[in-house]
Amino acid sequence: MNRMSRRTVLATVAGAMASRKIGGAQAPESTLVDPTKKPGRPSRALGERSPFEKPQRVPRGASGAWTPHQDLMGTITPADLHFERHHAGVPDIDPHTYSLLIHGMVERPMVFTLADLKRFPAVSRICFLECSGNLDRTAGPNTTPQRLAGQTSQSEWTGVPLATLLREVGVRPGATWFLAEGQDAAVLARSIPIDKAYDDALIAYGQNGEAVRPEQGYPARLLLPGWEGNTNVKWLRRIELSDRPFMTREETSKYTDPLANGTSRMFSLVMDARSLITYPTYPVTIPRGWLEISGIAWSGYGKISRVDVSTDEGRTWTPARLQEPILPKAHTRFRHLWNWTGAETVILSRAVDETGYVQPTRADLLTFRGPSSTTYHMNPITGWRVRLDGTVVYREEAWG
Amino acid sequence: MNRMSRRTVLATVAGAMASRKIGGAQAPESTLVDPTKKPGRPSRALGERSPFEKPQRVPRGASGAWTPHQDLMGTITPADLHFERHHAGVPDIDPHTYSLLIHGMVERPMVFTLADLKRFPAVSRICFLECSGNLDRTAGPNTTPQRLAGQTSQSEWTGVPLATLLREVGVRPGATWFLAEGQDAAVLARSIPIDKAYDDALIAYGQNGEAVRPEQGYPARLLLPGWEGNTNVKWLRRIELSDRPFMTREETSKYTDPLANGTSRMFSLVMDARSLITYPTYPVTIPRGWLEISGIAWSGYGKISRVDVSTDEGRTWTPARLQEPILPKAHTRFRHLWNWTGAETVILSRAVDETGYVQPTRADLLTFRGPSSTTYHMNPITGWRVRLDGTVVYREEAWG
Repeated sequence: MNRMSRRTVLATVAGAMASRKIGGAQAPESTLVDPTKKPGRPSRALGERSPFEKPQRVPRGASGAWTPHQDLMGTITPADLHFERHHAGVPDIDPHTYSLLIHGMVERPMVFTLADLKRFPAVSRICFLECSGNLDRTAGPNTTPQRLAGQTSQSEWTGVPLATLLREVGVRPGATWFLAEGQDAAVLARSIPIDKAYDDALIAYGQNGEAVRPEQGYPARLLLPGWEGNTNVKWLRRIELSDRPFMTREETSKYTDPLANGTSRMFSLVMDARSLITYPTYPVTIPRGWLEISGIAWSGYGKISRVDVSTDEGRTWTPARLQEPILPKAHTRFRHLWNWTGAETVILSRAVDETGYVQPTRADLLTFRGPSSTTYHMNPITGWRVRLDGTVVYREEAWG
Repeated sequence: MNRMSRRTVLATVAGAMASRKIGGAQAPESTLVDPTKKPGRPSRALGERSPFEKPQRVPRGASGAWTPHQDLMGTITPADLHFERHHAGVPDIDPHTYSLLIHGMVERPMVFTLADLKRFPAVSRICFLECSGNLDRTAGPNTTPQRLAGQTSQSEWTGVPLATLLREVGVRPGATWFLAEGQDAAVLARSIPIDKAYDDALIAYGQNGEAVRPEQGYPARLLLPGWEGNTNVKWLRRIELSDRPFMTREETSKYTDPLANGTSRMFSLVMDARSLITYPTYPVTIPRGWLEISGIAWSGYGKISRVDVSTDEGRTWTPARLQEPILPKAHTRFRHLWNWTGAETVILSRAVDETGYVQPTRADLLTFRGPSSTTYHMNPITGWRVRLDGTVVYREEAWG
């Protein structure tokens, strides 16, 4: 619980609920067809959602679809709602012919089948995956969290540590980088410092208990916890070790960030701390009284240590409750009880991670990044305006 | 890692892999259609599994379908593979007319709509849910983990603590039990000691990030972490407080366990510690060499503290690696690296929980429960026989 005592919270919520108090025991409201009067549907091989629930990704052209965070709770993203992003579509890959080549500055170049990968000691971890371009800077008031920043999702990933495979092939002295290359029509390739392999990189073949989904890299992908999405190469077919970065097309043309001080961040690999309110947001309308502001916060550098919430457009901030267990490099659910009295206001959230980094305002971010900034790695505090009639809209920001 | 040093593990796995070592760099094996040569599928609103992956629940008549643990990894059960079990089918319930009545020994009987429930401070937790009848005692050799014990599954549940609602309605002195009643055609009802409400009971409306699925109680269910499945009443419509148990039909006719010492366990509510190997099991065939024995362990009393694995039919036992984070009342993934040399043997797993309870053998369990025992709450150590040809079958047990 947050600073407000549990007793206070409950007393106030009780006030908000008082109108629902009833005189005595009575049956619940009836539904159109009383389900207690007729047998229900028999069991089946695969479950389906209730017809009343229709969460969907929003396709953005052919190359992506974003996660509907306004519809989600907790921290796990259902696999069919995990955002997808690709440069040449989702390939169909036969797991029986799939293989991963590891070569370059190694003692023993080797090819691993999927069955080979599964024979090694496995690891599972829950972590987020976020695209580096996860902000719609042209967002107008009628923008959902999904359209604003739906390119972050979370799964329980299972796979073999890349470090294990590197010990198999024997890394030659001097190898400091590796190239990861995908088997899609874009043949997406990225250079990764080898330290990340020894830290926590996985070759992941499992997602939320089952096989990785096609849009997430079936049958196996690179997983670099906390690092920008496109480095987590999907449909991984090749890893090549080297003593320098490979300077692939994407690295030089797209993923280098000019800074205000005249230098460039050539490899902006780690995703900075960020938070996103998911309720209340557009398109909901809220009633007056007590409700719970809820959202997710995450950092590529480790655990979230605090999320502050403001309900007065940033004048005052209060730490939100954080849902345990707080895992490193993972979406952490935050919640803050709020009594909306009916006044127009803006609600905001601000993440702090265990390194002490504080999620910046848009203004601070633009000052740091400068006028030539790319649109990547934008993690500003974002707000939601609550209007007098209870409608909630995105608070627009001028990005110049 | 387990007791074997990482270096040893990797050296030995390398031996098993030696045949795959190749002379130099070369392209991976080609697939039937090279996915790098043509654009893939565009993005879409909902993801689907690869056509090569077809995990399915096994329907057991009309009233249940079990989780395919032999196909799963990690700890989360995909929502459409969560086991289902009901006594009169799955009802269709309109969330807009759904309501929950709380009455009986309370100060203020109240009806809560789904929107009401969602206004209260929410909690999320990852935990297992297991049916008390989760053992096929007639299982023959050709039995999968799914058919043997597929009535346990795990989700991240989100909801409001029942304790919060009880403070709303005001519990009268002397109220020690509550009845939970479902809105299905069976109108399933169970009596629950009120202490569980104050401990960790939830009214859950979220499952793995989205709304609870219909077979799991949409739009809201009772969740009693660690307690037998049928007490976690689905499609919950009514809670009635009382000063004694209600002695419902199911409680007296089915869920009372006679014991060997002549007494009865009238309410066997908590699920005892248990483990289940999920790989290798029927129907796989394993090659000689190193592989990872993997499975899940859980306890309704708290955290799993240890899982021992035997690869010599129980003569010697070795602690398995446990995947962090180890959560209370949750499936915990265990893994044990094993070098199968080609000899026929039986592999076994044995869970120990933080109370010190050790998963019993079938013989110990039968001695404790006696000749009049019900088939509920059976959590024996189970084994898988590895034959000379590498086929793996369930080791049959005589239940007399």
